[in-house]
Amino acid sequence: MNETKIREKALQLHKQLTGKFEIVSKVEINSAYDLSLAYTPGVAESCKVIAENNEASYEQTARSNLVAVITDGTAVLGLGDIGPAAAMPVMEGKAVLFKQFAGVDAFPLCLDTKDADEIVQVVKALEPTFGGINLEDIAAPRCFEIEERLKKELNIPVFHDDQHGTAIVVLAALLNALRLVKKKAGKIKLVLNGAGSAGIAIAKLLLTSGLKDITLVSLEGILCPGEEWMNSRQAAIAEVTNLQKMRGTLEEAIEGADVFIGVSGPGALTGDMVQKMNKDAVVLALANPTPEIYPEEALAAGAAVVGTGRSDYPNQVNNVLAFPGIFRGALDVRATDITEEMKLAAAYAIAELVSDRELNAEYIIPNALDKRVASRVAEAVSEAAIKSGVAQTYRVSQKQLETIV
Amino acid sequence: MNETKIREKALQLHKQLTGKFEIVSKVEINSAYDLSLAYTPGVAESCKVIAENNEASYEQTARSNLVAVITDGTAVLGLGDIGPAAAMPVMEGKAVLFKQFAGVDAFPLCLDTKDADEIVQVVKALEPTFGGINLEDIAAPRCFEIEERLKKELNIPVFHDDQHGTAIVVLAALLNALRLVKKKAGKIKLVLNGAGSAGIAIAKLLLTSGLKDITLVSLEGILCPGEEWMNSRQAAIAEVTNLQKMRGTLEEAIEGADVFIGVSGPGALTGDMVQKMNKDAVVLALANPTPEIYPEEALAAGAAVVGTGRSDYPNQVNNVLAFPGIFRGALDVRATDITEEMKLAAAYAIAELVSDRELNAEYIIPNALDKRVASRVAEAVSEAAIKSGVAQTYRVSQKQLETIV
Repeated sequence: MNETKIREKALQLHKQLTGKFEIVSKVEINSAYDLSLAYTPGVAESCKVIAENNEASYEQTARSNLVAVITDGTAVLGLGDIGPAAAMPVMEGKAVLFKQFAGVDAFPLCLDTKDADEIVQVVKALEPTFGGINLEDIAAPRCFEIEERLKKELNIPVFHDDQHGTAIVVLAALLNALRLVKKKAGKIKLVLNGAGSAGIAIAKLLLTSGLKDITLVSLEGILCPGEEWMNSRQAAIAEVTNLQKMRGTLEEAIEGADVFIGVSGPGALTGDMVQKMNKDAVVLALANPTPEIYPEEALAAGAAVVGTGRSDYPNQVNNVLAFPGIFRGALDVRATDITEEMKLAAAYAIAELVSDRELNAEYIIPNALDKRVASRVAEAVSEAAIKSGVAQTYRVSQKQLETIV
Repeated sequence: MNETKIREKALQLHKQLTGKFEIVSKVEINSAYDLSLAYTPGVAESCKVIAENNEASYEQTARSNLVAVITDGTAVLGLGDIGPAAAMPVMEGKAVLFKQFAGVDAFPLCLDTKDADEIVQVVKALEPTFGGINLEDIAAPRCFEIEERLKKELNIPVFHDDQHGTAIVVLAALLNALRLVKKKAGKIKLVLNGAGSAGIAIAKLLLTSGLKDITLVSLEGILCPGEEWMNSRQAAIAEVTNLQKMRGTLEEAIEGADVFIGVSGPGALTGDMVQKMNKDAVVLALANPTPEIYPEEALAAGAAVVGTGRSDYPNQVNNVLAFPGIFRGALDVRATDITEEMKLAAAYAIAELVSDRELNAEYIIPNALDKRVASRVAEAVSEAAIKSGVAQTYRVSQKQLETIV
């Protein structure tokens, strides 16, 4: 079906549904007795138990399975700053995916403010209701500050999916591409085009995973200490990337690179540039819907493996492979944070779902709809949370164990 | 079943359910095509339509049927200030009732702040997500300021149920009690014991409905201009009540009264006081779970009709008769406000559901579970919203009509 037709159909569907989710009761109230249990006077008992120990809210209310999908509507898909009301169809879609792939109850909240302080304040006020916070489509650099502060100030996991979800799935795709072309992550030269929120998050996670030689490039050129056009985040990442402290353009950076990752814009990578890359080059051209280079062209220029963000080409790098399982895993052990270990564990779990036998240039990453993914990611994330020491249920049970002599 | 047993059962139920609601998707994502409609790239079409005209959010998202149930957990049931986490079981119960009785999707949000400015700020930030705001269990006098400011600053209906829901159902019960004892509302003497948020809201709505002689009494005594212990709200209502400008106690106020309404505390009204009331006295003793006077005692002392907040006595005055239908009616015509006319219409609709034939001292108000109520209230509220000029859909269609020549 062509894109115009899909747009028409999508609009029809949204109007017909008026909302892609509904709130459904788990109890029916058909008698005074029903009412006395679910509402007054019985409900008071449940309130008292939580008032004595707020942790009981995870047992007595929906909180333990409830995630807020929060945006200010400033960086929505390829649409940009379209405002909170217009962002809602995307956030509802996200909520649908959370439920479908991981059984997580996700509620979309589109906030009518672009002020970082106010967003932090609102989300802090919402903490007692939710078990986790998925930040979504918030423009840089505001998104960094908001996530950083919330991670510090809240006792529930906070995750900006545009940064970390993307980074996790990119790492998974990269690991399998390197497995296929038989190169070691620690020894490759990688160029990352795009130094916004996603680019910097990808660079950080790749470094954490053991990559050494990463060069970030923005529209202004290669990120290098001393470049005056860099913002503070770019300056910080420039310190730990670009080993040769090279200045210049993408065209210069790409020379001899093993991997190109693009989170930039349409057509940023040319066939000529791909030809200058190392043998068995890996190209992840993730600008969406129009990639940095189309797979046909990259392959013709000598790339060995190509991935995009599109569903109509092989190797779709799609966040839906990560976020449902990440939150499922975090909620299952009542993690207080999403740590680097948990992100790495998620990436490895996604990558491992492609067996050696299955792995080929057109299958380096599971399909976005592969139902095995979320539960495997969740398991790995839960385990990593326990190892990181942020799993509350585990800690509680350890504590309980200690009291048994 | 006795109350201890109910409490035990309620606690079990809450733990077993872990939340009385869930978020259910209206779409299934089983193919790349499904994903392209509900999420990218198709969803972008829906976003664009709303970005062009925010009103389209009522067609393209869940907003048109979505109400936030918002509390700060400071005045929960008879429990008081138990905090936001502990308030959640009540808010979830409210959400269940919204759905069950009126098909309204209601989402409970318990806020971790008691600051009026901050609560206003949070709710304002949430406006683009919701079609209406039900404030709940927020302590006085903060609740007045919060509701007043939100009503002014938001374009969606805002309703503090503890005030106005209670006032509406009380008015309905009163109208039918007077119908039964054949007294005219404009000619009776009414004593209202309790001058907090519910008491003042009741007094206001009764005055609006045409009652003339109302005397409010608080723990400090009769509200009368000049009394120094009154807060500003009490001073304001004292100006338009207490026709004789009487000072003193409940015992003095009750002499010769036709109606006693209590939203105060256990045992505030004695049999002796009831004996001093006028012939065919009406007693609505609404303190819950222990009323100002038990029905047996009030009837023995000569009251003609008695109502309470309890489900185990006749004539239960329960907010569930009002709030589901109020919001159903407001949402159906996309009302921007809940006006006094809409509140009155709701009260009349509830009262009218008891026919002359059915009306008796043990049946002045429909049962809390009567499934006819919400739809009748909704109809009446929608009509009143149109008459008040706050119904958006009506205005839109009028506008459209005008363009047709």
